[in-house]
Amino acid sequence: MKQRQIIIVGGTAAGPSAAAKAKRTNPNAEITLFEATDTVSYGICESPYAISGVIEDENKLVIYSPEKLQEEKGITVKTLHQVEKIIPTKHKIIVRDLRNHTTGEYEYDKLILAVGSQPKRLNVDGEDGRNVFFLKSRENTVNILNYLKSETPKQAVIIGGGYIGMELAEALRLRGLDATMVHQFSLPMEGLEQETRERVLEELQNNGVHFVTNAKVEALQLDKTGKVKHVITNRGSFETDIVLLSLGVSPNIEIAKTAKIRIGQNGAILTDERQQTSIEDVYAAGDCCEVKNIVTGNPMYLPLASIASRAGRVAGENAAGGRATFKGALRAMAVKIFNLQVAQVGISSEEAKRYGFKVVTEQIHGPSRNELMPGSEDLTVKLIIDQRTKRLLGANLFSCCGAVLRANTLAVAIQHKMTIDDIARWDLIYAPPFAPLWDPILVAANKAKKKYEP
Amino acid sequence: MKQRQIIIVGGTAAGPSAAAKAKRTNPNAEITLFEATDTVSYGICESPYAISGVIEDENKLVIYSPEKLQEEKGITVKTLHQVEKIIPTKHKIIVRDLRNHTTGEYEYDKLILAVGSQPKRLNVDGEDGRNVFFLKSRENTVNILNYLKSETPKQAVIIGGGYIGMELAEALRLRGLDATMVHQFSLPMEGLEQETRERVLEELQNNGVHFVTNAKVEALQLDKTGKVKHVITNRGSFETDIVLLSLGVSPNIEIAKTAKIRIGQNGAILTDERQQTSIEDVYAAGDCCEVKNIVTGNPMYLPLASIASRAGRVAGENAAGGRATFKGALRAMAVKIFNLQVAQVGISSEEAKRYGFKVVTEQIHGPSRNELMPGSEDLTVKLIIDQRTKRLLGANLFSCCGAVLRANTLAVAIQHKMTIDDIARWDLIYAPPFAPLWDPILVAANKAKKKYEP
Repeated sequence: MKQRQIIIVGGTAAGPSAAAKAKRTNPNAEITLFEATDTVSYGICESPYAISGVIEDENKLVIYSPEKLQEEKGITVKTLHQVEKIIPTKHKIIVRDLRNHTTGEYEYDKLILAVGSQPKRLNVDGEDGRNVFFLKSRENTVNILNYLKSETPKQAVIIGGGYIGMELAEALRLRGLDATMVHQFSLPMEGLEQETRERVLEELQNNGVHFVTNAKVEALQLDKTGKVKHVITNRGSFETDIVLLSLGVSPNIEIAKTAKIRIGQNGAILTDERQQTSIEDVYAAGDCCEVKNIVTGNPMYLPLASIASRAGRVAGENAAGGRATFKGALRAMAVKIFNLQVAQVGISSEEAKRYGFKVVTEQIHGPSRNELMPGSEDLTVKLIIDQRTKRLLGANLFSCCGAVLRANTLAVAIQHKMTIDDIARWDLIYAPPFAPLWDPILVAANKAKKKYEP
Repeated sequence: MKQRQIIIVGGTAAGPSAAAKAKRTNPNAEITLFEATDTVSYGICESPYAISGVIEDENKLVIYSPEKLQEEKGITVKTLHQVEKIIPTKHKIIVRDLRNHTTGEYEYDKLILAVGSQPKRLNVDGEDGRNVFFLKSRENTVNILNYLKSETPKQAVIIGGGYIGMELAEALRLRGLDATMVHQFSLPMEGLEQETRERVLEELQNNGVHFVTNAKVEALQLDKTGKVKHVITNRGSFETDIVLLSLGVSPNIEIAKTAKIRIGQNGAILTDERQQTSIEDVYAAGDCCEVKNIVTGNPMYLPLASIASRAGRVAGENAAGGRATFKGALRAMAVKIFNLQVAQVGISSEEAKRYGFKVVTEQIHGPSRNELMPGSEDLTVKLIIDQRTKRLLGANLFSCCGAVLRANTLAVAIQHKMTIDDIARWDLIYAPPFAPLWDPILVAANKAKKKYEP
């Protein structure tokens, strides 16, 4: 009997996750994973820590080698294979073998697209200078590390002040480089609350990052050797030895377009909650897809490894004949910026307004532990509340310690549609080395409740 | 017009909390707080850290002096006043002034009992030796500190291996004393899961605490100066310079008995969810009371500061004319034992069985952060699940880091009666410095789910 053929395109996060789950669900299925680079199953989220040297051996970021993935999970892995076209009517894909420069056809019963995203570009002169780097793949990581080693740059310009920009700034400062961050707005990290963004800016500046506000990059000026020597902006020109671009990512949708797969309003592949695309027998997961925001009920584009893994599993299970669903995501994110933990769960107050919520917010500062204990630090909690229902829509937390794991507790509240009254009644742990008598979460919820008192 | 007279008996945790809330609820009420010692509003939970020297100034454990409580909260505070009798039919109490050795009567409209608990005793010879200490009051704390300073003991015996025993063992080891812990069972900390208790024992032993199992203390042998020199047990005799008794506490119910207030099955004052006792206009809160276990629905005795504060607030609000309720507690506890964080939320697997649940448990080990990151430590999660409904009933977590705040997330799950299916679908934060791609909580829930698969 011919076995079910499952083809997976893309090998970074969602792909291997889908492949492994498909095999577990249906051990008889024949599963082939195509990856255009020579690397699969790479911990790209850990790359900034390899660049900083906090993780000493970059090789450790490879979670599974192609061989290991093949052997341990029972999957056929074909690296350096670029999928060029999907022909859904024939259940076929056309694949270019980048090693041998040949093209072949493969038949699938079920196809999973996990083709990821690509870094956004500035589209200015000099962007292809040999000291200009993105951070989106193992190749990028290795290139940065090699350059840091061989050319020992002294000054860096980071263009873009989002999550990855923050991590890169820390990494390069840890490496001893001067760092300038060029950002298009007056504060880093759009999407977070104003106060959080101000605190992030302070942390950058306290750690020697020169933050250039409201800057538009006009050109990257190359020297004779093909390296960017100056970053030219409307806010001045900045000398540099290395340029890092962290402008966010765009979903890879070219391959989907070859099959006329429906693209959503955020420009990424649209799927249902089984991760099926608009075309039968074709699933998608990870950075190439939209995901449902479970707070607003609307699709959003949120390229996170945690979502990719979960959605990948669901795609894999369904492709193998199962009936799994992915109900959407919350946006639960955190970043370490030098000595600051910053966490965001749910939606921002701006987003809430955009989606028609009338919003009440409450922000408190409290000690992360009993104040008398060493290591107790000021922790800020901002709650974003739907005025009408008292439901928690989102939160920002930041502190030197204890912010991120506390944010998870609020993530659960948001996911389960709890109100601030629910939260104010929580029975949380009190122990001096870990939390104050009234946890900052409880303080925030109780204070928010007062806004409803007559 | 005569104002509402609210009398509060007891000034450690529940009392001041009740007093402050009553005043906020009804600013016209006249509120008098009686306390038998000279201290109110004391951070007894922090005492072990004052003893260890981690908190250098013991005075800081006094959160409000009687004067400050009086001025800032608008409450009349009478220290060194021992309430001797309640006469509910006359709405009166009889109070002894310990300074002047006089007795007076006070009328109340509403009375709140927050009379706390007292340390359990061994009831063996030598227990009143002058180097034998409890840790239940400021006086105890100061006496221990004075003794440590003046007599510089070298060896300590701690009798009782519960939460306070753990903290005392750490404190004394940090002070440089040899420490022997004498415990009645084979493992410390009844109420935790077997694996947790084994890990706690290991941590004690790794830090030089000599743990004596299954020991029954027969006598404390005094020398000529009135100090215990040997702790005599059925498991041998242990030389010592100081003895710490940490055998748990019993509720103070004598005063309640003078008014025939109903005592519950756990030997503490029974209240309704408004914190009212069986006698009209008499409320109670804190260590003298039972509290409803929201997992089992049954009353339990759980003398914790966090519960005392919350129940105290409710008693205060109601005594002042409000309508607040305290729905019960979960048991959400944590302790630091040298380099180990131990947290318990909800009920244990033994308790669950005792209450008629058929139990499924799942225990996993996972990294507290991304494994490649410095500071990532093995974390253990044990889930205790109601087999029939898949509802989470309890959990133990332990690790060098990241266990306690994660336990809070599970506390919320228990409080809101979530199932392991709910938990497995949680959207938790992934960021390498804080959590692995699949948080140990998710790993545990997903693994538990597999037990239900065909």
